Amino acid sequence: MPNIRLEIEYDGTAYAGWQVQNSPQSVVRSPQRKTIQETIEKTLRKILQEKVRLIASGRTDAGVHAQAQVANFHTVSGIPAQKLRKALNALLPEDISISKAEEVHPDFHSRFSAKSKVYCYSILNRAYPSALLRDRAYFYAHPLDLELMRRETKVLMGRHDFSAFCAGASCAKAKVRTIKKISLKKKSGGLIELEIEADGFLYNMVRNIAGTLIEIGRGRFKKGALDKILRSRDRKTAGPTAPPEGLYLVKVKY
Amino acid sequence: MPNIRLEIEYDGTAYAGWQVQNSPQSVVRSPQRKTIQETIEKTLRKILQEKVRLIASGRTDAGVHAQAQVANFHTVSGIPAQKLRKALNALLPEDISISKAEEVHPDFHSRFSAKSKVYCYSILNRAYPSALLRDRAYFYAHPLDLELMRRETKVLMGRHDFSAFCAGASCAKAKVRTIKKISLKKKSGGLIELEIEADGFLYNMVRNIAGTLIEIGRGRFKKGALDKILRSRDRKTAGPTAPPEGLYLVKVKY
Repeated sequence: MPNIRLEIEYDGTAYAGWQVQNSPQSVVRSPQRKTIQETIEKTLRKILQEKVRLIASGRTDAGVHAQAQVANFHTVSGIPAQKLRKALNALLPEDISISKAEEVHPDFHSRFSAKSKVYCYSILNRAYPSALLRDRAYFYAHPLDLELMRRETKVLMGRHDFSAFCAGASCAKAKVRTIKKISLKKKSGGLIELEIEADGFLYNMVRNIAGTLIEIGRGRFKKGALDKILRSRDRKTAGPTAPPEGLYLVKVKY
Repeated sequence: MPNIRLEIEYDGTAYAGWQVQNSPQSVVRSPQRKTIQETIEKTLRKILQEKVRLIASGRTDAGVHAQAQVANFHTVSGIPAQKLRKALNALLPEDISISKAEEVHPDFHSRFSAKSKVYCYSILNRAYPSALLRDRAYFYAHPLDLELMRRETKVLMGRHDFSAFCAGASCAKAKVRTIKKISLKKKSGGLIELEIEADGFLYNMVRNIAGTLIEIGRGRFKKGALDKILRSRDRKTAGPTAPPEGLYLVKVKY
């Protein structure tokens, strides 16, 4: 049975996330919004005349975006992958688009085959908001000390127990992950981009790191705070969860 | 009476334009949508407790965006301009934001004082659409010959009668304008940006130039076509009007 791999871009603003999360927060916030998974599955069903199940590299929360989410599904239909991309883009709502559709090895599994993922968190750090970046970056007006934030992030590199940055109840049991790359870049117009590549991410991990770094950048935590927070393994020591609109799943590496 | 100058960013997607245009096209397309002008005027009225009239550098059409539209108004209220920016950003819908508010010389007039304007037209030229750039760029799947388009644009530089690129009925009588700069840049991810600076623009001029250049880029016109079209002064010889979502008012120079 052919195994089809999709690369998917989406604007998560209007959705309850990739799939409905178990967290009470997302259920309360988006009781009747659709998920991205069900939207694509329904469209695939129309095209293939067959019910298929999409397996994603991982879930993304309500309001979170993807530049290149990866998902695969098995199908008995003989439709060529290239035609499938066109058909999907013609029928999907405009806030979901398919960049790639290809047949892959039967063993390929979007989640289990993934070696690492890259997330980016965008902060618009200036005195006034941006109409064109609303829902695309977290508007944070108080000035941030980017150099201080950069120095602090260094302790996150490598293999650690990231419990301090994991939303309690809904979190995985094994909380050890390896951060392969982490960078904070200043872009034009007041944009700051936090990019993290890791072999895996705990629930809300990037948003919790971003929220903590913002507290550091505005001077609410002392020098060396991130190291202490990381070693505490206690979510309560870290900063708040930064809002979803700044978060992008950039790439999944296999 | 103090004269306040605003710099305004907006996502034009949800609006009937800066102000309702006289063209039948925009009336039909957006019968009940609000205009950006009335939205800001209403908010100013709430803040200032006074009816004010906004004078913009020029109108933008339904669906067209602005990175920095300029508009001014006279007010008897003594509110400091800096406070006004905050109050406006707090009360305006998120798809309109104020980057700057300052008191200017009583003679300053957003339209008549303008020396030149810069517009950008974004084309997403690749085989598949982009969820994150929907409503922000014109998705055009057929490959375009950018070098050919660049060579052709050169004839537009300088002072010309641009009647061939002006929507007939609703157009200004004097159709001579001076293009000071014109460039076509290739950006990442298949984006092409056409940027034009001129001392003024005729109605739909940038979208008509963009639509014509796209026809040239895909090989529908012969070499030297743009020169002939320009000299014909006949709108019927040019290409179609490119859709509004690719167009941005980038800057107004004084």
